[in-house]
Amino acid sequence: MAEIVIYRYGHRPARDKRITTHVALTARAMGAGSIIIDTGDRGIEENIVAVNRNFGGHFKVQTGVSIERFFNSLGNNDLLVHLTMYGKPIMEKIEEIKEASREKDRIVVFVGAEKVPGIAYAKSNFNISVTSQPISEVSALAIFLDRFLDGNELKNEMKGRLDINPNERGKTIEYF
Amino acid sequence: MAEIVIYRYGHRPARDKRITTHVALTARAMGAGSIIIDTGDRGIEENIVAVNRNFGGHFKVQTGVSIERFFNSLGNNDLLVHLTMYGKPIMEKIEEIKEASREKDRIVVFVGAEKVPGIAYAKSNFNISVTSQPISEVSALAIFLDRFLDGNELKNEMKGRLDINPNERGKTIEYF
Repeated sequence: MAEIVIYRYGHRPARDKRITTHVALTARAMGAGSIIIDTGDRGIEENIVAVNRNFGGHFKVQTGVSIERFFNSLGNNDLLVHLTMYGKPIMEKIEEIKEASREKDRIVVFVGAEKVPGIAYAKSNFNISVTSQPISEVSALAIFLDRFLDGNELKNEMKGRLDINPNERGKTIEYF
Repeated sequence: MAEIVIYRYGHRPARDKRITTHVALTARAMGAGSIIIDTGDRGIEENIVAVNRNFGGHFKVQTGVSIERFFNSLGNNDLLVHLTMYGKPIMEKIEEIKEASREKDRIVVFVGAEKVPGIAYAKSNFNISVTSQPISEVSALAIFLDRFLDGNELKNEMKGRLDINPNERGKTIEYF
């Protein structure tokens, strides 16, 4: 199965810290292997390392990879999917994306902030929308991963120093 | 069918403006009818009104409704679902939630920021997790609405002053 990598474009540390953290947490919780962020941001790197330590898994984060460097790093074994409200509806394309990803080592999901340069549309194998409406890139990524992984990502079990036991009411946390 | 209302708790205008806006845009794009936000925030209200004008629909936003007022406003015809990483997995409970919602006028989805008081756990009919991992409340809401509406929300068509035509590459926007 192709490894899932997220590329986050347009991250401004002062303004987007929380949104980009939500993108990263969504990617991690929903089955991606790593996130690459265009602008350097040590705070987000440390945050995700702490989440791995507490809640498990090996999700990787790398920051400071410019869009030029990112596009240069892509090869024939990568499938590039750009999430954009201007793209084709996910339900029309998801089977084609799954099929195309079978021959690839990685599926790279490009998640932009407000302004995305034309090269992202041109270079992507698929430009995909989750509703043709303004929506959060966090939600768009969640729905994309859910459809791509057929809902199996909801059964992921990662173990760290803390373990959350599902509850009807209240909280149960086990510490190891 | 029960109307879907989102209650956003713990909104701090200075810090959470963008995250709460993403919660509201997700709610609107994915089939909810309205969002109620605990702290007053004229900026978010204006933002959502502008999105309706441009992209259609009648999504409502109300801010400045404290948690006490919110709980007091709930009645027997409301089903309250709280999204929390400490809750029961969504895939175990979603059919039960759909069934319970059939007898109700509204399904109210409680979406907290970092700290949520115990009353939210106690008063909710369901405490539901989307992965038992730290995840964005934006993603959790998206997955919840998607499961609750069986993916039909992705086919929503709202019409405003702008209309986005899905594209393989680039952007097509029609102006009315």
